[in-house]
Formats: sequence, structure tokens, C-alpha cells
Amino acid sequence: MFYHDNELQYEVEVEEPDPQFAKMLQEAIGGVEGEMRVALQYMFQAFGQPKERQEYRNLLMETAAEELGHIEMLATAVSKNLQDAPEEMRREARENDAVIDAMMSGGQPRQALSAGLHAMPVDANGNAFSGNFIVASGNLAADMYANIMAESTGRLLATRLYEMTDDPGMKDMLAYLIARDTMHQNQWHAALEELGETLPVPASFDQEKENQDFNYEFMSTFREERENPHERWTEGVSIDGKGEFSFGTQPGGGNPQLEKAIEQMHNEASQAGGSMGDSSIDDTSTNE
Amino acid sequence: MFYHDNELQYEVEVEEPDPQFAKMLQEAIGGVEGEMRVALQYMFQAFGQPKERQEYRNLLMETAAEELGHIEMLATAVSKNLQDAPEEMRREARENDAVIDAMMSGGQPRQALSAGLHAMPVDANGNAFSGNFIVASGNLAADMYANIMAESTGRLLATRLYEMTDDPGMKDMLAYLIARDTMHQNQWHAALEELGETLPVPASFDQEKENQDFNYEFMSTFREERENPHERWTEGVSIDGKGEFSFGTQPGGGNPQLEKAIEQMHNEASQAGGSMGDSSIDDTSTNE
Amino acid sequence: MFYHDNELQYEVEVEEPDPQFAKMLQEAIGGVEGEMRVALQYMFQAFGQPKERQEYRNLLMETAAEELGHIEMLATAVSKNLQDAPEEMRREARENDAVIDAMMSGGQPRQALSAGLHAMPVDANGNAFSGNFIVASGNLAADMYANIMAESTGRLLATRLYEMTDDPGMKDMLAYLIARDTMHQNQWHAALEELGETLPVPASFDQEKENQDFNYEFMSTFREERENPHERWTEGVSIDGKGEFSFGTQPGGGNPQLEKAIEQMHNEASQAGGSMGDSSIDDTSTNE
Amino acid sequence: MFYHDNELQYEVEVEEPDPQFAKMLQEAIGGVEGEMRVALQYMFQAFGQPKERQEYRNLLMETAAEELGHIEMLATAVSKNLQDAPEEMRREARENDAVIDAMMSGGQPRQALSAGLHAMPVDANGNAFSGNFIVASGNLAADMYANIMAESTGRLLATRLYEMTDDPGMKDMLAYLIARDTMHQNQWHAALEELGETLPVPASFDQEKENQDFNYEFMSTFREERENPHERWTEGVSIDGKGEFSFGTQPGGGNPQLEKAIEQMHNEASQAGGSMGDSSIDDTSTNE
Amino acid sequence: MFYHDNELQYEVEVEEPDPQFAKMLQEAIGGVEGEMRVALQYMFQAFGQPKERQEYRNLLMETAAEELGHIEMLATAVSKNLQDAPEEMRREARENDAVIDAMMSGGQPRQALSAGLHAMPVDANGNAFSGNFIVASGNLAADMYANIMAESTGRLLATRLYEMTDDPGMKDMLAYLIARDTMHQNQWHAALEELGETLPVPASFDQEKENQDFNYEFMSTFREERENPHERWTEGVSIDGKGEFSFGTQPGGGNPQLEKAIEQMHNEASQAGGSMGDSSIDDTSTNE
Amino acid sequence: MFYHDNELQYEVEVEEPDPQFAKMLQEAIGGVEGEMRVALQYMFQAFGQPKERQEYRNLLMETAAEELGHIEMLATAVSKNLQDAPEEMRREARENDAVIDAMMSGGQPRQALSAGLHAMPVDANGNAFSGNFIVASGNLAADMYANIMAESTGRLLATRLYEMTDDPGMKDMLAYLIARDTMHQNQWHAALEELGETLPVPASFDQEKENQDFNYEFMSTFREERENPHERWTEGVSIDGKGEFSFGTQPGGGNPQLEKAIEQMHNEASQAGGSMGDSSIDDTSTNE
Repeated sequence: MFYHDNELQYEVEVEEPDPQFAKMLQEAIGGVEGEMRVALQYMFQAFGQPKERQEYRNLLMETAAEELGHIEMLATAVSKNLQDAPEEMRREARENDAVIDAMMSGGQPRQALSAGLHAMPVDANGNAFSGNFIVASGNLAADMYANIMAESTGRLLATRLYEMTDDPGMKDMLAYLIARDTMHQNQWHAALEELGETLPVPASFDQEKENQDFNYEFMSTFREERENPHERWTEGVSIDGKGEFSFGTQPGGGNPQLEKAIEQMHNEASQAGGSMGDSSIDDTSTNE
Repeated sequence: MFYHDNELQYEVEVEEPDPQFAKMLQEAIGGVEGEMRVALQYMFQAFGQPKERQEYRNLLMETAAEELGHIEMLATAVSKNLQDAPEEMRREARENDAVIDAMMSGGQPRQALSAGLHAMPVDANGNAFSGNFIVASGNLAADMYANIMAESTGRLLATRLYEMTDDPGMKDMLAYLIARDTMHQNQWHAALEELGETLPVPASFDQEKENQDFNYEFMSTFREERENPHERWTEGVSIDGKGEFSFGTQPGGGNPQLEKAIEQMHNEASQAGGSMGDSSIDDTSTNE
Repeated sequence: MFYHDNELQYEVEVEEPDPQFAKMLQEAIGGVEGEMRVALQYMFQAFGQPKERQEYRNLLMETAAEELGHIEMLATAVSKNLQDAPEEMRREARENDAVIDAMMSGGQPRQALSAGLHAMPVDANGNAFSGNFIVASGNLAADMYANIMAESTGRLLATRLYEMTDDPGMKDMLAYLIARDTMHQNQWHAALEELGETLPVPASFDQEKENQDFNYEFMSTFREERENPHERWTEGVSIDGKGEFSFGTQPGGGNPQLEKAIEQMHNEASQAGGSMGDSSIDDTSTNE
Repeated sequence: MFYHDNELQYEVEVEEPDPQFAKMLQEAIGGVEGEMRVALQYMFQAFGQPKERQEYRNLLMETAAEELGHIEMLATAVSKNLQDAPEEMRREARENDAVIDAMMSGGQPRQALSAGLHAMPVDANGNAFSGNFIVASGNLAADMYANIMAESTGRLLATRLYEMTDDPGMKDMLAYLIARDTMHQNQWHAALEELGETLPVPASFDQEKENQDFNYEFMSTFREERENPHERWTEGVSIDGKGEFSFGTQPGGGNPQLEKAIEQMHNEASQAGGSMGDSSIDDTSTNE
Repeated sequence: MFYHDNELQYEVEVEEPDPQFAKMLQEAIGGVEGEMRVALQYMFQAFGQPKERQEYRNLLMETAAEELGHIEMLATAVSKNLQDAPEEMRREARENDAVIDAMMSGGQPRQALSAGLHAMPVDANGNAFSGNFIVASGNLAADMYANIMAESTGRLLATRLYEMTDDPGMKDMLAYLIARDTMHQNQWHAALEELGETLPVPASFDQEKENQDFNYEFMSTFREERENPHERWTEGVSIDGKGEFSFGTQPGGGNPQLEKAIEQMHNEASQAGGSMGDSSIDDTSTNE
Repeated sequence: MFYHDNELQYEVEVEEPDPQFAKMLQEAIGGVEGEMRVALQYMFQAFGQPKERQEYRNLLMETAAEELGHIEMLATAVSKNLQDAPEEMRREARENDAVIDAMMSGGQPRQALSAGLHAMPVDANGNAFSGNFIVASGNLAADMYANIMAESTGRLLATRLYEMTDDPGMKDMLAYLIARDTMHQNQWHAALEELGETLPVPASFDQEKENQDFNYEFMSTFREERENPHERWTEGVSIDGKGEFSFGTQPGGGNPQLEKAIEQMHNEASQAGGSMGDSSIDDTSTNE
């Protein structure tokens, strides 16, 4: 279960409020690379750990709760970028509707219209956060790769945001979040190391059951057949150490040869069965 | 640009059509772990490669085109599971509406209602494929982790499907797809190896700019402070070799202390400023 | 503006309630082929007609209001299939929770859980209706084709539903709805006829500005070059009467040759610029 | 910021695992009436409270953290309904693929395919949780009504789930969740009482600016004009005490009279301007 | 069933077209606080009323039809803000493509690209209207709270839009819509009053079945245990008059103790069962 | 199966990069009128063709592969509009963060934040591509109308984009795409011609089963009954040649008369059954 206190996890200060940057920060809240995704992803992964894997449940839940605090920090940053205008600017706003226009032409309309100048569970383009972003597959190795990916795109996003602001408060907050993403990338790699031999994921599927003619062949789909380009992925021992890379082309499996669907589907396009002359249809349609 | 021919990439045969398995197969077409995702993900990643990275563009495009062929195979498998009923069953279907009911009680309604007993760009729960599934971040290392994750959850899905069918044709098709996922996991790992030192992603961000007090600390959020559990992720050299893991707690950053939004937002809940007695509001609201 | 009265547009009777059919009927309410789509589509098209096109505004609004009545009919049909169980069945339901299970195993969970055994604005797979289904392009010819398509897939859906039920009340209701779709297909074709020469849509774009080397050529993308198959679409006068069909292949436009993005995007995957040896990167990255 | 410990908030026991009930429970996790919605809604509302409203920030955050614990309980309940099959059933599962089929025909495919028999952030129909479910308007009175509504539909859902299971463990868990919803409905009503005079929301908008001819009139849209039905909402003093209910009809505001869009939009449907004979277009189109 | 006529419900005039305001108005059409939501919400609630509740069906349908007219008004306002530019501006537009750019830099791209400068069924951020916005729970008390909430956030939105425009026509239209929201808030409160004792919703669930140890306790989740803050929601009689508020903490329910999923799920992360040394797995995995 | 080569299908050059136009181009990639939709739509239609319809499978697949090449062209155009800034601008960008701001104020945030200045599978408003856009109904006539509609709105979009740019490279690319849409409109019309008599779609449903009183009547829903306006759609022979248009009004089908749902749904709003005095509920609720 969960607890909270009244403090932010780390200071959030904004010197010069910037409504446009408030829009950008939304990506780090409700975007596919954002904190809602990782907080909930680690939580759902933790929820599914069996009792034998209490260490992993702990590991995931510790970081899930940390990420909830990042949502709070970023939401605070959005509010401060939208609201903490200096007093004269705020006074002026009361007298001059044009200020609202200025705040919004470069901002995200719904931060004002739907949230009264606060953060929302949406991304920088204004799309709602989706449960589809969350990966909790039941297999820890697959999940660790999902987490590494999430922290990689998350840190990439944070560095891009860092480049887009000159505000010292925002740079300080982002430097903290970037540091945490460094740690999280490392900790998920560490967990993967602890899990032992995990490739190919899922490791518990007996590779003798997979088609062994094609499990280590790089398959070229180039229109004209190419020579083996002698890349790391076309020759030599495979990364999982269980095969030898080779270079080939698509095997080909014949034309699909589908039957028609049953008549009740009314897939027949024309009354006469069309111009295609397949008289066999007439035979059956008379029984209808 | 793209080309096609009339053959499937690999044979798709169904001995005993099973509408319920047709529903399950949808996950491998339009699901987050499915083939539409990887085909389009590799394609969009390829589209963004600069001219200096032609090898990577090739690598990605070769596999993108391969994955398109997997969509075709799986769509064919869906149609065959829904339609290739033996002749007597199909004849009976014409006379007996109850057969339709039987086909659908365990199936996915829209495969019949919207697609005339064919595959759709949706997952096994019936949700539409979404462009949100696609990750093409502009950074190849982040993208390779996204690809490893996609092939890990993809192979996991395929092995689960393999366990759920006894049809030899379906098992053969899935054994092929599982093998290809083995290769694809290996090839993206190989690409990552070729890229060199990529951690923490993005490697081009100068780590001196990140907050160096917190970039290798495991942050416990346990309610009661815990001892260092001496895990791989709480002590010793970090996986990227650039730091030393430590164990700590959330630093704390004070209360957020937000200002009120401008009056035009009408965030004030009550006419008298509520029961909270914050008289400072009256000062400003009289100017309104 | 709009009005209503207390009657359904046409009788809706259910002799034998069938929760599974209630699930199927959802497609005709909130599905892409359903009545919410056409009602709102015709409404938004009407809303955008300029004052010179009052006849078309009328035409669209007349049918929009009719379609609203179809939503009401279908919602009533859903409720009756879920609720109008005979008295003994309903009495039993009060005593025996298993009846609820039976009603739901073949039904759609949210019709019970979220709507208390009533219709919802979702499709047969349970996906919410989306504003994305609505096409109102501002160009009447494009809109008329969107309407013909909507009524074609709508009538196809209704005929499939007709085949799936034996209930005389449901068959009667569907026979009415199928008839209306016949009329609506005809009326949108009639509107198109009245609009005059509309091909290619939009007709107001001067065809001399389009690339006249490729505007009537069937472009084969077959891997191996094919002979002209002499189909209606590969030779002879075009359907719009403004060109001559021909048969060719993709022209080819060279390699895309993209530049790298600015450094602040942190697209660089590795610290050394990767193993790809593109020394040009070093030049710029040292300036960073 | 947030913390966690290793315990559930309340016991979750399942005596007889029921995969179909696991599907139903999803509505209480990721559905619009579910716990993800309230946890995140209260959190975002808390994030936006100005420093003068610390009591309300506390109130909201206390309950947000409580609701996170409900997600954990329900996710545990899903896993136990899918997995805690008795030993013989689990042993049999290893030998008999048909058991998987049985577990899934009545369940939700993605709980198996995507989550390895665990909970997902989706509803009972399988739709992903959406940030769109979350209401945090910036105005506390509007938010309190959103919360009362959320707890009303939430408790309604929980009572429906209670009726659908005979498992004593599940009934005990739901009796706890229903009790909490009782409290939460009461606490949001209490907060509203404390806020004072809040109607009509937002109370800070000067009612003299709204159209005072229509602000307390019940507007009948019946096709034939009706008599005042003398309901509570058609006569007598209004609920907010600021007006007198009356009964009337829609005022009517003339035909919209839209101009045509600029030519670059290509809204013109036909080459001759269609059959509508508005010659004015010819004048301008010749300049194009 | 439904009817329409040629008039708007109320005048819609725009003196100075403003494409940016046209973007904002979208929130009132297709946003979660918008008119499509309430029109369809009241309609679906009406569709589900049993024959004993004809007054409520009438009440809901009267207002549903009114709200349809509001969509029409707002769509007209969007078109007029995008199109009714004065003649010189329109003439100039024909000669100068830059005007299009100007119209769009501050506007919503799809209003031009997809709708030819007309309204769309989307919100101000450009997200499509979703059936998920609609609440029709089957329980009238829950629905009335959903309606009060919808009209509260709807009126809040309308007042914010009112503050953002100086156009007298737009202010007049919004003053009308704000007035109608005042009435609608009042009428749903009146309906709730008529329904009698409705708390806690649903009132028909016997409270003796809910867990009576926790149904009126405010549950603090603060990390450090707090004293009772003596708020309206922590002591005294509850709002529903059926309990006494108290103040406590989360009860705690032990560790979840999940079993592992069946082997066919391939949840095992590594070939050796990982580094976790749970030998029990080896026993079963040898049978595989 | 599919193949590719290294060339674009047609040249893509940008003289003056324009981030705002890059945003607009997204509509042609991931929008409902865009190339992802048609590529995948034709592909799914092809996948479902039975073996008797190989010509149609070929026709569809030829164009599907062509459309994939259009996605590549447009993605290249987006990258070039975002990145191919002249050298001084790019150098300046390294020194001056303000340039990033300039690139983004008029652009789409996620093209930078999520894609590193590349194309994404989203539309111009930033919404993700959805599988819901794809129509593959199983009936070729319905599908051909869906294709004509897609190419009509697609060409309309392309002409609007053509009007919004002055860049010669972009105009040349769009002139090519507009030409291809001309051809595609023509080829789907040609396919429809070949199919023969297809109206009303689906032609295989026996029209004697539809309600013949209403299948050719234009149904006016005007509040006051109107005279027949003598339009093409209210009199004369119908377009399908199978009926005679007439003019009438909605038939009316009585009040819906729904029963109450079973008690376990807890649809009852109040404890006393509300103010509606339906005593019959008390009888049953005592048995509960």
C-alpha cells in the first residue's frame, strides 16, 4: 500500500514562467516517454510478481513510488510556468484580456480551458495518457527490456527539454530527472544481469521447437538479391551464443488460396457474382 | 520504395479451423506486441536515418519489409481459421444459422460484423492498432532497445499462442515466427554492439550536466527506512562503468507553494471565497 | 435546431431476449458502420454548408435527424434483449446469481457493469465511438462518397445482423433499417448526380497543375516486371473521361539523403559517434 | 512525494479462482468507474491547489494514496482468480492444453497473451485506461462534483461485482471497497459543504453577465408545444435560490447564413459549380 | 424520434473572425466538457428509462434535443470565425497564400486540412470526441451527479471562453450558453431532490452488507501518523446522516503471496530459473 | 510478401525548410486522409480476397505497395522541412537555443520531443494513426466505395497542402501525389464498373426481405410537414433503377416501454423507490 507526505521529492523553481515550455513539459508527464507511464508500468509489473520473487517486487515498487513523485514535480513545474507570473504581469492580466491570448497562442489550449492553468494527464501534442503505454508482460526479462527502453526514451526526452530552456530552475530540475534516468537505466540492466541467461526472451521456450532453419539467418528483402554485406548481424556467432548468423532471403510459401466466406456474410459484391465468371457461386446461391 | 509478389513468405495451413484461435491471432497482428507495430516501427526508424547511416537504414528496411510479410501470413491464418471449414460444415452453415452463433460465441464479433470473417487491424481484445505503439526516437540506441523489447514481447506472445493450439499448421507457422523473433532479437543486440558505448542513453549528453549526487543512487521509497539490501543495484560499480551504485532515500524539496491562477480562469469555488477565510482574495476580487 | 417526441420511429419488439445479440447490435450503434456515425456525420456536413447550398443543408439535416431515431431504436433493442426476459426468468434471476453469469458469459461485460443492462456508445468489440469516424470535408462530392461508403458498410452490417437472428421482432426492425440504407445509398448517389461533373474530386483543382505523366498510369509494384494485364484499369479511356489509362512502374526518385538533426536533439547514439567511422561527426561534436 | 510498504491495504483472498470474474474485475481497475481514475484524478486535483488551500491538497492526496492501494488489491485479485487454481488443476494444466482454452473462452484474451495471467490497465471490455477519464478542472466545486460522480459510479460498479460472485474472499474484498466508496461520497459532499455557496458552478462568474432571460427557464423541445407539466424543475424557486423556474421553448435565432470558404480550400464540389447555379463563383474562379 | 427546423436555437454572430478563437471553441463542441457529450449523455440516459419513469425520460430527452442545437450553434460560430473574413481580407486571400499561413499558425491545422475551415468533432487540442465521455449508468442518482458535473465543467469552460474573447457576438452567444448551463445545473439538482434519499449511491444496496468498520472513517495515508485534523470530514455526523465520521489509518492486509502462473505462459525469465534459486521450479520444469 | 530498394518512388526536395509545413504534412502521413490509411486498407482488403478473385487481390496489392512508398516520401519531406536548414542556420542553432524555440512555436512539439525532428505516425493535430481508419469489409463493392472516398479526401487534402506552400520542391512532390490520387480514384471506379450491378450494396441480399414500404422513400424529419420539394431524391426512378423515389415522413412506432432491469444491477436510485410511487418495487425488493 502507499503513503505520501507534503514535500516534493526535489525542489521545483521557475524564474521566468514560460507557457510554451509548460506545453513541452506535458510530454514528460502524460507522454509515452513520460512519468505516468513508468510509475504505472513498474507498479503493474510489481503487482504480478509471485511470492518467490519478492526482491524484484521490492525493486519495482521502490521505483514506482519514486516515479509518482516525478509526476508531482513536473505537474508543479507546469503550474509554475503557467501561473507564477510576476505581480505586474498578473495585475495587467486582470485588466487586459490580450494577456490571456498571449499566454495561449504558444501554449496548449486545454491547460487553460480544461485545467485552469494546470498540468493535465496528456502529452505535448495534447493526447491523453493511455494504458496502452504500459508493458507488464509477466516475464521479467521482457519487462526489464521494456524498462530500459522506457528510461532510454525518457532520458532522451529530458535532455531535449533541458536544451529547450534557459531557466535555471528548470535546468536544475531536469538535471535531477536526467540523473535519475541514468540510475534507472543502470538498475534495470543490473536486474537483467542478475536474472542470468535470458536470451532469446522468453528463455523458457525450448529452442528445439522453433524453426531451426531460420532462427539465425538475416533475411534480406531487397528487390535485387544482394551479396552478404558482412555485417555483425550477417555472419559470426550470434549474440546469444546459441547460433551462427547467416545471410539469406525470404523462403516463400505459395499463394494463400483462401476459400470464400459463408454466404450469410454477404461478401458477394454483385448480383451476378460480378464479371469474374465464377459459376460455382450460382450453384450454391440457389440453395440459399 | 516497395515491391511485392504473389507468394506468402512461409506456408500457412490450418487443419482444423478454430474461430477462437482466430481471435487470439489478432494480438499478433494489431496488438502492441504484434507485426503491424514492428513493421511500421522499423520503417519509421529507417525513414529518419541520415545519409551517414545507410547501413542502419538498410538493416531496418530489410526487416520492415520482412515484417509486412508476417502481417500477411497472420491475416491469412485468421481467414483460414474462420473460413476454411470442411465442406459439410460450410454446407450446414448455409442451412443452419446456429452455426454462425457457434462461430461467434467464442470469437471476436467484429471479425464477422465488420470484416466478413477476415483479419482486422485490431488486437485480441478488439482494440484498434494505434500509432502510439510505434517508437522511432531519432536516437539509434534508444530505438534498438525499443526493438529488442518489441521482439521480446513479440516472441513471448508467439510462444503463448504456440501453447494454445494443437493444429499442426498453426504450430508450424508459429515455430517459424518464433525463430524469426530469435533472429531479430539477436540482430538488434548486434546493432547495439556495433554502435559502441551507448550507456546511459543518450550518450551524447554530457554527464557533468546531470545531477551527480543522484545519478547512481538507488532511491528507496519504503515507508520505514531500510538497510541497504546489498543487491547488484545498490552497491558496486554501475553497469555503464561510469559510477558506483549507492543506496539512499528521496532528498525532499519542500512544499510546492503554488500561486493562484489569474481570475479569468474562474478557479474560485465559492462566492465568498469559501470557508477558508483567505482574505487576500477579497483584495483582488474587488478589482475585477 | 432540434425537436423530439415520445414515439420510436418504427416498432422495436423482441420475442426472445438474447444477450449475445445485444452485444452484436452495439456495432450498429457505436461502431464505425453504425448510426451514431451517420447521424453526426450528416449533421456536421450540414453545419458547414454555405447559404448558397440550402438544399443540401436541408437534405443532410433531414437524414441526420432520421438517423438519431435509429440510434434510439437500436438502444431500445439492446435493452429489450438484455432485460425483457420472461417473468419466470427474471424471478429466477433474483434468486440465482448463476443467471447473471449466463447472461454475461456470451454478452459484453460493460453493458452490465457500466450501463445496468442498457446500450452504450461502443461497438461490438466494446470500443468507444470516436469522432474520428466522422467525415465532413467541406467538399460535397468527397462527402457524398463518404456517405455512400457509410451506407454501404452500414447496410452490409445490417444484413449480417439479419442473418444472425431468428427473432421475428429483430428481423422486422432490421428489414426496416436495411430498407432505409437502400434509400440512403440512392439519395447520396442522386445528390452526386445533381452536383454534375465531380471527378476527380476535388473538381476545382486545375488538372494542369497535377503531374500529367502519372495521372492515368496504373503503377505496378510487382517485384518482377509484368506485362500489361489488359484490365479495365490499365488501358482505355479513364472513368472520368479526361485521360487514357496506361500501365507502368514506379519512376524512382533517388536516395533520400537526409542531413543529421541539430545536436540539441541528442540523436547521436554513442559517445564516439559509433563504430561507423563517419569522421564528419567528430568535427561538429567537438564544438558542442 | 510517495512511499509504500509490503502489505496490501486489506486482505485479498480467492477461494475458487474464476477467470471470468477476473475479466469483470478489470472494470474496477482500468475502467472509467475504476481505481486508476480516482487515484490519478485526486492526485492531479491535489497537484493544482494553491498554497492557500493546503487543507484541500491534504484531503485529496490522502485519498489519492489510498486509491493506489485499491489498484494493488484489485490487481492481486485478478492474479489470484487467474492463477491460484488448486494444485491438481495446475498440474493438469501442464499436461492438457485444453485447460488453457477453458480458462480463456470466458476470460479476457490479453490477460493471458499480454500479461501472462495478470491484471492490465484496461477495462472489462479490454479498452485501455485513458487520461481522458481524469477531471481536474482547477475549480474545486466542479472537481468535488466530479469526485462525487466518480464515487457514485464506482460504488455502483462495486455492488454489481458483489452480486456477480459467490466467492467469500471476493465478497469480503468488495464489501470493504463498497464501504470506502460510501466514505468517499460522504467526504466529497462534506468538502462541498465547507466550500460554502458554490452554485451555479463556477460561483465567481457574475450572473449579471449571463443571459437572464434564459437562466432559469426549462426549455421544452417537444415537437408539439406542451403545457407546463408542473414538475420541480419547471416552477418554483430554483435550487440555487437565485431564480424562479419557468417553462418555455427554444427562442430561435435565424438561419446560420454561412459564407463560402476561401477557394484554396477546394470546397467546390464540381467543375461547373454544380447544379446550384451560383454564378458568383465563376467571377472569382476565373481569377484563380 | 427526432425533428429539426432551419433556424439556429439562438443567434450566432461574429464581428471580427478569429481563427484562434475557433480553435478554442472546439473544446465546447467535442471536448469532455462540450455539447456533444451532454447531448449524447442525456440521450443514452433517456433511452434506458423503464416505462415507470416516463417523466425522467421526458426530462432527459427535452434537454438532449436542446443540446443538439448547441452543437449547431457552436459549429456555426467556428465556421464564422474561420470564414466570415471581411471582403478585402477574402480577396487578398485569393492573391496571397501568406494569409492562409497567418490563419493557421494560431489555429488548429485540421480545421483547414480536414474540414475546409469548418468545425470538427474534436476538442481544442485536436483530440477526437470519444464515446468514453458519456456516462449512462442505469442508476438515475449516479446519472444526475454525472450531469451536474458535466454542466459544472461545461459552465466553467464557457466562462473561460467568455473571458478570452472581446467579440460582442461571441460574448452574446456565450452569455446565452452560460445561462443555459445555470438552468441545467439547477434542473439536475431538482431531479435529485425529487428522487428522495439517494445517498450513498446506489441507495438500493443494503448497507449492512458493506464493511461497517470502514464506511465512515477518513483514512489517512500520511507517512507519519497525524492527529485528527478536526475537519468536517473527520468527525461529526456524516453527510448522508447514516454514520459518524472518524479518523484512522489503512488497516493492512498482509503480503499478496501470489503463485506462479502456469508454465505455458512462459513467464520464467531465464533458463536456469534465474539467480533467485527457487528450486521448486526445477521440479516442475523437468516435466515440461 | 514484400521487397524494397534504396530509392524513393519520386524525388523529394525542399528548398526552404518550414517546420510549420512539416506539421501540416503529418496529416498526409498519419491522418484519416493519409497514406498509412490507404496503404494498410488496400493491404487488408487484398489479404481477404478468395482465390477466385486473384485479379482483385493483385489490383489491391499493387497499389498498397505504391502507397507504402508515399509514406516514405512524405516522411522524407517532414525530415527535410525540419532539418535541412542552411548551414548558417544550423550553426547558429548550436549557439543559440532560441532557434529551437522558433522551430517549435509554429511546429508540432512531438516531432522534436519524441522523434528528434522526424516524421511520426500521427496527424496534423498530433493524434496517433488508428487502425479504426481502415475499412476492409469483406465485400468488394463496399470496399471500392471506401477506397474512392479515401482517395477523394486524400486528393482534397493534397490540394490544400499544395495551396499552403510556395516551395517548388514541395509543390512538385504534391503535384505527383495529386496525380496518383487522380489515377487511384479512376481505378477504383473502374473496378466497380467491372464488378457489374452492385447497388444497393450488398447486392447479394434479397431485396424482397427488406421493408418495401420504406426502401425508396425520402423521409422528411422537418418539424412542420413540408411539401415534396421535387428534388432528384424525392421523385422519379431511383439511381439503382429498382425503385421509384417518393416523399414521406417518419412512420412512428410507439413508446419503447422498457421493463426494469433485474435488481442485482442496483439501478434503483433511491431507498424508497424515489418519488415516483411505483409500489411494485417494494414487493420484489423485500425478497432480495
